[in-house]
Amino acid sequence: MSNLLSLDVLMEKYNSYKAQNLKLDMSRGKPCPQQLELSMGLLDRIEEFKTDDGTDTRNYGGVDGIPEAKELFSKMLGVSTKEIIIGGNSSLNMMYDTIARAMNLGVLGSDMPWGKLQKIKFLCPSPGYDRHFAICEQLNIEMIVVEMKKDGPDMDAVERLVAEDESIKGIWCVPKYSNPDGITYSDEVVDRLASMKAKAKDFRIFWDNAYAVHHLSDKHDHLKDILKACKEAGNPDRVFIYSSTSKISFAGAGVAMMAASEDNINLIRKQISIQTIGPDKINQLRHVRYFKSVEDIHNHMKKHAEILKPKFDVVLDVLDRELGGKNIAWWNRPNGGYFISLFTLEGCAKKVVAMAKEAGVVLTNAGATYPYGKDPKDHNIRIAPSYPSVEELKKAIEILCVCVQIASIEKNGE
Amino acid sequence: MSNLLSLDVLMEKYNSYKAQNLKLDMSRGKPCPQQLELSMGLLDRIEEFKTDDGTDTRNYGGVDGIPEAKELFSKMLGVSTKEIIIGGNSSLNMMYDTIARAMNLGVLGSDMPWGKLQKIKFLCPSPGYDRHFAICEQLNIEMIVVEMKKDGPDMDAVERLVAEDESIKGIWCVPKYSNPDGITYSDEVVDRLASMKAKAKDFRIFWDNAYAVHHLSDKHDHLKDILKACKEAGNPDRVFIYSSTSKISFAGAGVAMMAASEDNINLIRKQISIQTIGPDKINQLRHVRYFKSVEDIHNHMKKHAEILKPKFDVVLDVLDRELGGKNIAWWNRPNGGYFISLFTLEGCAKKVVAMAKEAGVVLTNAGATYPYGKDPKDHNIRIAPSYPSVEELKKAIEILCVCVQIASIEKNGE
Repeated sequence: MSNLLSLDVLMEKYNSYKAQNLKLDMSRGKPCPQQLELSMGLLDRIEEFKTDDGTDTRNYGGVDGIPEAKELFSKMLGVSTKEIIIGGNSSLNMMYDTIARAMNLGVLGSDMPWGKLQKIKFLCPSPGYDRHFAICEQLNIEMIVVEMKKDGPDMDAVERLVAEDESIKGIWCVPKYSNPDGITYSDEVVDRLASMKAKAKDFRIFWDNAYAVHHLSDKHDHLKDILKACKEAGNPDRVFIYSSTSKISFAGAGVAMMAASEDNINLIRKQISIQTIGPDKINQLRHVRYFKSVEDIHNHMKKHAEILKPKFDVVLDVLDRELGGKNIAWWNRPNGGYFISLFTLEGCAKKVVAMAKEAGVVLTNAGATYPYGKDPKDHNIRIAPSYPSVEELKKAIEILCVCVQIASIEKNGE
Repeated sequence: MSNLLSLDVLMEKYNSYKAQNLKLDMSRGKPCPQQLELSMGLLDRIEEFKTDDGTDTRNYGGVDGIPEAKELFSKMLGVSTKEIIIGGNSSLNMMYDTIARAMNLGVLGSDMPWGKLQKIKFLCPSPGYDRHFAICEQLNIEMIVVEMKKDGPDMDAVERLVAEDESIKGIWCVPKYSNPDGITYSDEVVDRLASMKAKAKDFRIFWDNAYAVHHLSDKHDHLKDILKACKEAGNPDRVFIYSSTSKISFAGAGVAMMAASEDNINLIRKQISIQTIGPDKINQLRHVRYFKSVEDIHNHMKKHAEILKPKFDVVLDVLDRELGGKNIAWWNRPNGGYFISLFTLEGCAKKVVAMAKEAGVVLTNAGATYPYGKDPKDHNIRIAPSYPSVEELKKAIEILCVCVQIASIEKNGE
């Protein structure tokens, strides 16, 4: 802790920001309007509604997606067309449904529905995605925090816990450009997840590959193929992979998908056929007609990056300038995804978020990146730079930095 | 049983049909291509994506539907905008999810999740909708058959069972133009359902009003408002109402909805906010832009009726001509909906469906209209006239009638 302005000067700055009655929202990883404009061609009127196999997408039929969508998105995820189900507009919904079905019916290889067991636990590498944790909390699944390291979850802890506790049925992972840390799991982490011994024979990895193609520049992180790794390790059914076009096409009207071993998919398809008449096939058709190939998707993502990169840059620039070298805060520099994860001194995050809010800057609630909304060290703040403009971001992060400094000084004065 | 042709003559007819290698499908209540064409204007490119409350439908936000859609469809269902949730493209999915959530979380007023109880039972007025029964079967909910009378379920039986058995948590109802009987529940039945004593305080009526506006002519059945009746009877939270535009706009890409008391809806909205990022709001916007008012919907439904009425008529004409007055089969003459329900002599339905299939006419499996696929009297056959052409239907029903006559003679000869 060094080179800090005095508390008086900082408070003066803070109060002058407050007087401006700002309203800046950096709370959710929400695409900005310019990003939504990129996909407007998707909404052009379709004239031919038949799929390659002759299905009229306007009518009933098909619970697991149209062949063309399976073709396109299986390539995007690196799986086969027999290893994928194309769903509605929400991958979160597919994750929730997978777990809700597991509670009511079990997964492939379960002796009984998870809900019939005394206790179910999930490992939650943290900081992580609040909506994953909310699913567990709603369904009364006990969450165990596992520390996130530079290359993924603390695998020593994961291996030990999964090997010894039969009630641990799952682990949440955002393996690429993780939410919120922007970390991509190393090959070693992927291999260890795929090959570790699990006491519960129906243990599952919930692999939320939300940012599979969401690079910020030409510098791409590489994520090892976990389905292949699971197969090679003799655990082909261990992983459920999820993704969507929510941050490729439209956040509210994209196409979601899940991938897994053929045996997993066959069972899930059968279960889903009771649950629904099937996904909106017209919207799937729109997507495959607009994004003709994975290459198209990659090119499209470059346009998103052109919009997002300057936003990430301004956040990092202001953080560097205002907090760099002061030993009161640390942050990541992700190559993709939607977040910058900021770590304050212990015990400061809640205060910083509250102060920022008072000055009109809304951040994700402090603690939200941990199970039960409780960050044990109260030190993580998730910054979502996608929605505000560069100018708004600059001001918002400047305010944030003032708040961090004030909270740090006050902490040290205690 | 009278005026029948000889078995030899009938078999000769049957074999000549078989030789034609026909392929006619009357198995599902699926709109025909001409019906789908009626809604093509729905797919015109939208230029303005904001809702009345300023939400960009392309982006995240809103789990319970856009205000305009709540406005339109609450009027269609006769509820308030606070008593409705607008969902994705499948009301079946909303029903399944309601029950899956009840299993995992309980409903408003539950002491514990239904899945934690030893035994859950649903009353199933039968014949009924096979997909309702499939949900119960998957979720291990015991189904109790209740007889369908001319004006709805046998209410003496329903009242007795619900009053004495706490494990009965629900009843399936298709109250208007019922699937498959085409029956509309009488006011008395609605009142008795709303006011009966239920041993389970969290008992629910699953009111699948799939055919709310699906009349075949100007002769409309009237269905009493059950939500109002429940409120008046002091059981405001007893009913979950479902509907969709699947057979108004597109079967595969419509808009589904559920309605219930405000307290029910408030709890469900909260539960759903964990489950999904929300429904496809662009598709909801398409629907409200295209169907501007309930009057528009009613006028649109007249166009459907123009296509469907001749199909129902030809089925009824052939049944009258071939089976009328022979005392071997009975059928309904619905004023709306998607089905004609045919009753054969006891023990004949399976045989008839199998024979028809062999001659190229695919009907819904015999027994499908009963829980566990078992029609105790083996006498009900569901005819779905919507998809085939009038010419195809004429031939298909002629074949069906030959099969019914053969099966009846063989049964009597046994």
